[in-house]
Amino acid sequence: METKHLENLRHSCAHLLAAAVMELWPNAKRTIGPAIEDGFYYDFDFGNDKVSEDDFPRIEAKMRELVKNWKSFDRAEVSKEDALALFADNEYKRELIEEFSGEDQKLTTYTSGDYTDLCRGGHCPHPSSDIKHFTLLSVAGAYWRGSEKNKMLTRIYGTCFPTKKELEAHLVMLEEAKKRDHRKLGVELDLFTFSDLVGKGLPLWTPKGATVRRELERFVVDEELRRGYLHVVTPELARLDLYRTSGHYPYYKDTMYAPITIDEDEFMLRPMTCPHHFELYRAKTRSYRELPLRYAELAKLFRYEKSGELSGLMRVRSFCLADAHIIAQKSQAEGEINGVLDLIDYIARVMGLVAGADYRYRLSLGDRSNEKKYFKDDAMWDEAETVLRTVLVNRKASFYEAPDEAAFYGPKIDVQIKNIHGKEETAFTVQYDFVMPKRFKLSYTNEEGKEAEPVVVHRSSVGAIERTMAFLIEKYGGAFPLWLAPVQAIVVPIAERHNEAAVSIAEMMRKKGIRAEADLRSQPMQAKVRDGSLQKVPYLAIIGDTEINSNTVSVRTRRGENLKEQPLDDFLAKLVTEIETKAIS
Amino acid sequence: METKHLENLRHSCAHLLAAAVMELWPNAKRTIGPAIEDGFYYDFDFGNDKVSEDDFPRIEAKMRELVKNWKSFDRAEVSKEDALALFADNEYKRELIEEFSGEDQKLTTYTSGDYTDLCRGGHCPHPSSDIKHFTLLSVAGAYWRGSEKNKMLTRIYGTCFPTKKELEAHLVMLEEAKKRDHRKLGVELDLFTFSDLVGKGLPLWTPKGATVRRELERFVVDEELRRGYLHVVTPELARLDLYRTSGHYPYYKDTMYAPITIDEDEFMLRPMTCPHHFELYRAKTRSYRELPLRYAELAKLFRYEKSGELSGLMRVRSFCLADAHIIAQKSQAEGEINGVLDLIDYIARVMGLVAGADYRYRLSLGDRSNEKKYFKDDAMWDEAETVLRTVLVNRKASFYEAPDEAAFYGPKIDVQIKNIHGKEETAFTVQYDFVMPKRFKLSYTNEEGKEAEPVVVHRSSVGAIERTMAFLIEKYGGAFPLWLAPVQAIVVPIAERHNEAAVSIAEMMRKKGIRAEADLRSQPMQAKVRDGSLQKVPYLAIIGDTEINSNTVSVRTRRGENLKEQPLDDFLAKLVTEIETKAIS
Repeated sequence: METKHLENLRHSCAHLLAAAVMELWPNAKRTIGPAIEDGFYYDFDFGNDKVSEDDFPRIEAKMRELVKNWKSFDRAEVSKEDALALFADNEYKRELIEEFSGEDQKLTTYTSGDYTDLCRGGHCPHPSSDIKHFTLLSVAGAYWRGSEKNKMLTRIYGTCFPTKKELEAHLVMLEEAKKRDHRKLGVELDLFTFSDLVGKGLPLWTPKGATVRRELERFVVDEELRRGYLHVVTPELARLDLYRTSGHYPYYKDTMYAPITIDEDEFMLRPMTCPHHFELYRAKTRSYRELPLRYAELAKLFRYEKSGELSGLMRVRSFCLADAHIIAQKSQAEGEINGVLDLIDYIARVMGLVAGADYRYRLSLGDRSNEKKYFKDDAMWDEAETVLRTVLVNRKASFYEAPDEAAFYGPKIDVQIKNIHGKEETAFTVQYDFVMPKRFKLSYTNEEGKEAEPVVVHRSSVGAIERTMAFLIEKYGGAFPLWLAPVQAIVVPIAERHNEAAVSIAEMMRKKGIRAEADLRSQPMQAKVRDGSLQKVPYLAIIGDTEINSNTVSVRTRRGENLKEQPLDDFLAKLVTEIETKAIS
Repeated sequence: METKHLENLRHSCAHLLAAAVMELWPNAKRTIGPAIEDGFYYDFDFGNDKVSEDDFPRIEAKMRELVKNWKSFDRAEVSKEDALALFADNEYKRELIEEFSGEDQKLTTYTSGDYTDLCRGGHCPHPSSDIKHFTLLSVAGAYWRGSEKNKMLTRIYGTCFPTKKELEAHLVMLEEAKKRDHRKLGVELDLFTFSDLVGKGLPLWTPKGATVRRELERFVVDEELRRGYLHVVTPELARLDLYRTSGHYPYYKDTMYAPITIDEDEFMLRPMTCPHHFELYRAKTRSYRELPLRYAELAKLFRYEKSGELSGLMRVRSFCLADAHIIAQKSQAEGEINGVLDLIDYIARVMGLVAGADYRYRLSLGDRSNEKKYFKDDAMWDEAETVLRTVLVNRKASFYEAPDEAAFYGPKIDVQIKNIHGKEETAFTVQYDFVMPKRFKLSYTNEEGKEAEPVVVHRSSVGAIERTMAFLIEKYGGAFPLWLAPVQAIVVPIAERHNEAAVSIAEMMRKKGIRAEADLRSQPMQAKVRDGSLQKVPYLAIIGDTEINSNTVSVRTRRGENLKEQPLDDFLAKLVTEIETKAIS
């Protein structure tokens, strides 16, 4: 089904929801009810009534009852006065009517059965037969028109599909996504926490979560070093003047924290790393022999997010970006960008992502006529866009082009990853920048001994560690591949007399670099295996008399597979190999 | 010689300096001239005259001339009026006279030869024979009375010893310290830099410096993990309320940065990690089975330092502390503190420090009667001090006791390290804390199922990474042990035709985890070896026809030793072992 038809179906279902609600709560005030990605919602002011998900059965029953008589959506043009009269008691609709008529627009209503709503149109042709496979999903608070200054309304979310099969598949996906929600798993698997005293949007990583983070970070740093990146460390604070020089200050002002005055100078928590790396570059005169110079850093960055927009690890107020700035001769740009995509593809592969299926690239272009949004230099834009496109085409990458999505200093390649909801989002970017070198007067001595201006490639390899962690937790449902698992193996003694052996086997494993524990609780073996599986520990090595006597372990996996009794040495070797190769189990 | 005599000698020499200066610049105004550690200084207002180190020979000559007639220091009591008359043109001395006489003090002058100075006394008995082995050292600007609001004076530093031998030894030490100054080596070896645009006290680590840092940090983290520490990651920002709860806010206010307002809440850049770790602990209910819980973190901290007090990496405005908080049952405290000292001794040994000679411990005690400075709980102080003393005594550690040096929440063990100037400074501490558990209501369920209060041990293992780096740079004079060296080996081709082989040997080394480079510049081999040595690269592997044909390398060290031709495989194996064992070369 085409997107437009699906949208019309869902918007029609929103009408139906409102019709049912108005029958059940005649004093409720309707506001707006648009189709959204994957469904629709309708916002109501229920006055003093409380409506919750417990009310869904009767609302849905009413919807099914009403829709039988909905043969069509009948359009009518109405005057402002008639419209105002129609919604005499509804200040929300009246506000919309005033606004729409002020805009010199025609006002229209749509009627189905006994229900009429102010609406611009966009419905399905035969509601009684079209609207069959729907469900209400959740209730949430939402400010009228999205502003915290307005009244809090009750938003009811629902979805509707053309077929039963599609609806059911969607509900299964939602159920799975809910189970894999990183905020839920973060608590269950003890990976991170939040503290009211510390503040919103500032996660605290527990030992387990910090272990996964450390493995991920070391992997990224080591791989970057191997590819010729030079890791540096620069401060989280800098003088406001640095961001005035970079031109970020006016542009990023709203997402930066207020300056801190130190000795009559204003300092900022940095929202990005680029100017710091440029200052490192400028600390010496540079020759073409040194280029390309690839400065990389696990950079802590700070950005303001509204408290309502904070969400688990996905939207935080401080995060760590696997950042880099490649300062190169213009002639090197193509090769460098290709090298960046090699690295991104490699890291994605290690994470278990399939290019094309799990992620693809987006070439974000500038608009030559928009001089406010984009730095004016048509020739440079043409050149830079050609370089990026050439790289993508030559490597046969899966990509599409998006006009008017570039950064102000140049075009970029966005890495678009599919999340657990099947939705594509920009994980991070690779940007071609010909503006900052001018602002910071970056230069090098070229082969002829003359001063020349380099270009800069801003890039990440894996994005913000926090978001990547959220993504990985959801992708694996908490069952990380062995190399990332916070606890890689638990040794489970069958009886208390096997405790000593369990401790010594766990110790032997730790000496081989395996994160192993012995479970010495006074619980039955089965309970320990179950708990270990729930904690998504990859391997549970059970030992009793037989195993101790034969120097073996009986291995279960977190998925319940019984790998049977095997020589301890073989088991250890298998784990070490699986860790070293970063196998995805 | 006793400290007091040495001080008197040096203060006498300061008089002599002032006498010589007044002869040479009769319009100069004298101010003050105290003895300091290792020498003395005298501050002058030279008006429009410029005095520099170039003037030292004639000042010193004049001093030697004058001192011949200085038979003694003759004391005289003078009235305020006489004193003011004596310094009619000197507003500095007059300010002091007003102040001293206001304090109802006797005013005294001391005269030697023709020179009289306002002075409280403390001189050597026979200046003409005592003051022989002196030298002037440097000139610096210094505000009158240390305030930026006052006039900038000229400070002349010098030193004086009882014997020629002692003076010479001191000068050799100063020369060596100057060569090893981490600020100087930081530039020469390209380890870190500062940027005016980024701001004072905020170092930027270059690829080389960041490499040393990374090796050091990974070593510390891995060793701590091995010893049962749980590394966590907590945010650099927190609500002001967190520090109000901890009680740090009023106490540390002057060294913290001003709060940042976010959504009507005040946030601070954290000056310490403890409250964050307590919040992690409080995220769950805890059982005695989980204790001791050793939370560790490489924690970025922010503290205000006056711009005049900033110095290289020693005094910075943002630093990274290898921090930890051990939350333990009271009965576990002794064992835990002993374990901390084991770790500290181990890390120090790896760095090449000898316990007793290079560092020792200081047991810093509280004063039961000072209830303002120390939390009031005599029994707890007694108990905690006994625990710390017992640990130190039992392990036969080199330590001394220092009254009135404890933290407000408990006694501590300070790690006192000797720096390049032979001076002892507190590098970091191990603190016993019985106050924070109360403030944060930390608790656990004990063996009897009852709620109990743990104690906290605050500790570092290596201190602030920045200070440790400064210390290591100076200790090794930039010639880091192989495992820390930013570049571990350079392959030097004898002629251009050996370049290809050099590149492939360097690549072979990198595959073995050795940080190696090939020097392909069109320079003579000798120049490359010299440059590599100056950059303190541990090994320079020279290759020419002979070496390539026999699969060998000719090895020189940065100290100029010729290790002769050796099989390439042996050389690689030697380096890998030296790195793995963290050998000190």
